[in-house]
Amino acid sequence: MNAWKKLGDYLRETQLLGTIQSTLYWDQNTSMPKAAAPWRGEQLSLLAKVLHARQSSEQFELLLQEAKLEFKKECQTNDLNHKHVLEKSRNIELLEKDLNRQKNLDPELIAQLAIAKAQGYQSWQEAKNKGDFLSFAPALRTLIALRQEEACQLSEPRTCWETLAQPYEPDLSIKRIRELFEPLRKCLPELVQNIKSLKRNNLPNWDLDDNSQNELCNLLLKQWSRDSNNTHIAKSPHPFSITLGPNDFRITTRIVRGQPLSCFLATAHEWGHSLYEQGLPSQSHQWFAWPLGQATSMGLHESQSLFWENRIARSFAFSEKFWKEFVKVGAPLNSPIELWRAMNPLMPGLNRVESDELTYGLHILIRTDLEIALLEEGLEVNDLPKEWNQRYKDLLGISPENDRQGCLQDVHWSEGAFGYFPSYLLGHLISAQLTETMSNDISIDNLKSVNPIDECIRQGKESVLISWLRSNVHTHGRQLNAEQLVELVTGRKLSSNSFLNYLTKKLDHLTSSS
Amino acid sequence: MNAWKKLGDYLRETQLLGTIQSTLYWDQNTSMPKAAAPWRGEQLSLLAKVLHARQSSEQFELLLQEAKLEFKKECQTNDLNHKHVLEKSRNIELLEKDLNRQKNLDPELIAQLAIAKAQGYQSWQEAKNKGDFLSFAPALRTLIALRQEEACQLSEPRTCWETLAQPYEPDLSIKRIRELFEPLRKCLPELVQNIKSLKRNNLPNWDLDDNSQNELCNLLLKQWSRDSNNTHIAKSPHPFSITLGPNDFRITTRIVRGQPLSCFLATAHEWGHSLYEQGLPSQSHQWFAWPLGQATSMGLHESQSLFWENRIARSFAFSEKFWKEFVKVGAPLNSPIELWRAMNPLMPGLNRVESDELTYGLHILIRTDLEIALLEEGLEVNDLPKEWNQRYKDLLGISPENDRQGCLQDVHWSEGAFGYFPSYLLGHLISAQLTETMSNDISIDNLKSVNPIDECIRQGKESVLISWLRSNVHTHGRQLNAEQLVELVTGRKLSSNSFLNYLTKKLDHLTSSS
Repeated sequence: MNAWKKLGDYLRETQLLGTIQSTLYWDQNTSMPKAAAPWRGEQLSLLAKVLHARQSSEQFELLLQEAKLEFKKECQTNDLNHKHVLEKSRNIELLEKDLNRQKNLDPELIAQLAIAKAQGYQSWQEAKNKGDFLSFAPALRTLIALRQEEACQLSEPRTCWETLAQPYEPDLSIKRIRELFEPLRKCLPELVQNIKSLKRNNLPNWDLDDNSQNELCNLLLKQWSRDSNNTHIAKSPHPFSITLGPNDFRITTRIVRGQPLSCFLATAHEWGHSLYEQGLPSQSHQWFAWPLGQATSMGLHESQSLFWENRIARSFAFSEKFWKEFVKVGAPLNSPIELWRAMNPLMPGLNRVESDELTYGLHILIRTDLEIALLEEGLEVNDLPKEWNQRYKDLLGISPENDRQGCLQDVHWSEGAFGYFPSYLLGHLISAQLTETMSNDISIDNLKSVNPIDECIRQGKESVLISWLRSNVHTHGRQLNAEQLVELVTGRKLSSNSFLNYLTKKLDHLTSSS
Repeated sequence: MNAWKKLGDYLRETQLLGTIQSTLYWDQNTSMPKAAAPWRGEQLSLLAKVLHARQSSEQFELLLQEAKLEFKKECQTNDLNHKHVLEKSRNIELLEKDLNRQKNLDPELIAQLAIAKAQGYQSWQEAKNKGDFLSFAPALRTLIALRQEEACQLSEPRTCWETLAQPYEPDLSIKRIRELFEPLRKCLPELVQNIKSLKRNNLPNWDLDDNSQNELCNLLLKQWSRDSNNTHIAKSPHPFSITLGPNDFRITTRIVRGQPLSCFLATAHEWGHSLYEQGLPSQSHQWFAWPLGQATSMGLHESQSLFWENRIARSFAFSEKFWKEFVKVGAPLNSPIELWRAMNPLMPGLNRVESDELTYGLHILIRTDLEIALLEEGLEVNDLPKEWNQRYKDLLGISPENDRQGCLQDVHWSEGAFGYFPSYLLGHLISAQLTETMSNDISIDNLKSVNPIDECIRQGKESVLISWLRSNVHTHGRQLNAEQLVELVTGRKLSSNSFLNYLTKKLDHLTSSS
């Protein structure tokens, strides 16, 4: 057997174990009864141990070296296809990078981190319930110290925060983040001011029963190319998308009483994540177990979910097309515009998850600044609530009444996940920029229209959009990082321009229609 | 760390992996999309390999020897509690037995069997669809040969069929099976004749929608002590009960259109299995990973599910108590007796799974005879359909029109599972005999009633029955085999008397009420 094949078999077994882990996670969130948690915890920690051992083993290192050597010889002796060479080299490069990360970490630190994360999560839950940040502060301090130590051990040519952000957003730097986000810091607060004068309601004053909501979601997914042979939908407290095998794509949603569009929009969002996973080159190249078969970054992932949620489901064209389906199941809507307004509430709030497209970015700016300050600039943990509240006042003009509404609202830091938040906002920027290019690229029946994306929605031809995303975005896997991919597809470096243009136009449309 | 604790840790890790396997199986049957099957197959076969290696490893053997040695010393030097000694010895005895079974098998044979089972299952499905037994015959012949080889390798002081039946029914012999089943072979056909003259309808001519059926099932489980903190209910094509952790008990049911009681009775049945699992001494003795924390036999397991399905849910007292709930959700019932009759259809049919309490035993007798004949008496596979049909004619007075209705109906043989069928019928016998003793033992509010079980049902005090089962039956785990347990609890050797008495009385009641 050749070395490449041997390496592939090794990766395949690792991936089998990895997807078993994911299946346990799926079950935990969709079916598992509460009292089963400790045993599930033991199962997961056993698998984590086995997986880490495999991913940092000498056997793996050897297999990788041999495959690399074999590939080098192949390159010297044969006239290889250029794309083939690029793909193989990239797979090797990424495997080496991942292996080095795993190898550089002291197993002792990994064990300490696992405990600190579990304790941090528990302490955060209690602190959040009580609205008492100080009781969570010691756990957060421990997590910060351990993750700083982790960055040290990894000893990459990057700052601490940058090192920790790499798994979510490869190659990202603080300098680049600031470049990308600065225009938003300037423009968004002004747009928020414009909206405030509108005094629009945040929530519709009607609701839909479970069956109706499920029916609408099924209709949506059918329209958006769902194949029930390789997908499954369930309910969970927090919606998510997960891939359990090369032909096993799952999403979850939830029904929120009093918010008749919550489940529908969550379905659109999670389905966008799933479409990305479904479009990765795991089938075409049997790369499910290889780096190139995987998503390139969380920001790009988010761009795909936001495209389907914000650009499609919240568009006016979509409300025109879909409002009668809402009426059929009992929504008291008199026109598409009523559905569209309900889909697009605009109201600066304190909560990131519940926030609208406009204010979302501000929530992220605050978190990004603060976690860099905590990790690199010596911000004292005890000062976090004060800093948090001040920034909300400065950027959104509102202040939380307590830490539950404030710096205790998100789960991320409680599990030591620093560097994740920017991906959410990068997703908005990437989605907007890709959408502009898509809009220029596509045509239906070879006819150009002013807004071909809206035209696809009106004609029920979302498959055209999916095809474009598959062949321009999804197909690359980790061959390119998120910024390289955006530049390749759009011909421009990533910036906040497209996103700000999109927002401004949408706000104009919304305000003129009020 | 002492040797006993080390052994326990080893067993715990094995059990962690075993329950991961079970979780994959659960997911496969409740959530997994169809196209995911090949990848799931690879995950399961990887886990099976790892588990077999653990269960037959030298490390395990050594740990077991050391624990045994330590225990012997303990017995010599300390004045140990008698029960404690019995339990520890039994755990060691069973672990050694299980280890020897695993060690005696040639890994080559295990691999061949795995392939033959998969091929057998597939070939059976195709043959069943076509109603063409001969296309399945070669696969069945291979499975028989391989399992005969397995029995040889195990070289126990038992016949081939007996050896293969051990995992389901420890210590069972053909002689004993014949002793137990002969009276049924004599009496059941006569009872069937009596019933035939009744010409009762097999199915109610009404139905209930999904929500109503789910509501009734939830009501039933609430009444039967369900704790939603450690249990979860889902739907699957074939109902089953499974345990995924010391506090993680799951059951599945299914809704069958046109059979409004199918889901309800399946819920009662599977919940009976689950109650047994919940009552095993895994909590009280932290024995989840030890033999004593496990079910003693499939026959005993079945006795528990049949108790709740047949003795309780199909009883007249239950219909009296529950019929108004059925009426509330729309069942067109005018009296308890109408529900009771619908719960107890009596009609000899060709299908085991759909058969009633009376004819069920005959289906099992036929299968048991035939599999012994195939494995030990040289019955030619090609002659199986003819033999099958003849026996149905002799015992039930009916003959299948094709092999789909006949010898291709059950999945068991297609996966090489020989020796399982008798457990179903043993379950009926055990349930009946245990129930007689329970009826003598229990009292409500210290008052004796003529039929205290019915009285419990009428008063909604099923918890009294559960307590009795927990402390008399469930608590033993594998300390006693099924027959020893029955003898200990009832003071009599297991026989078919109680079951035949119960059937005769029930038939009298049913016929007199017609």
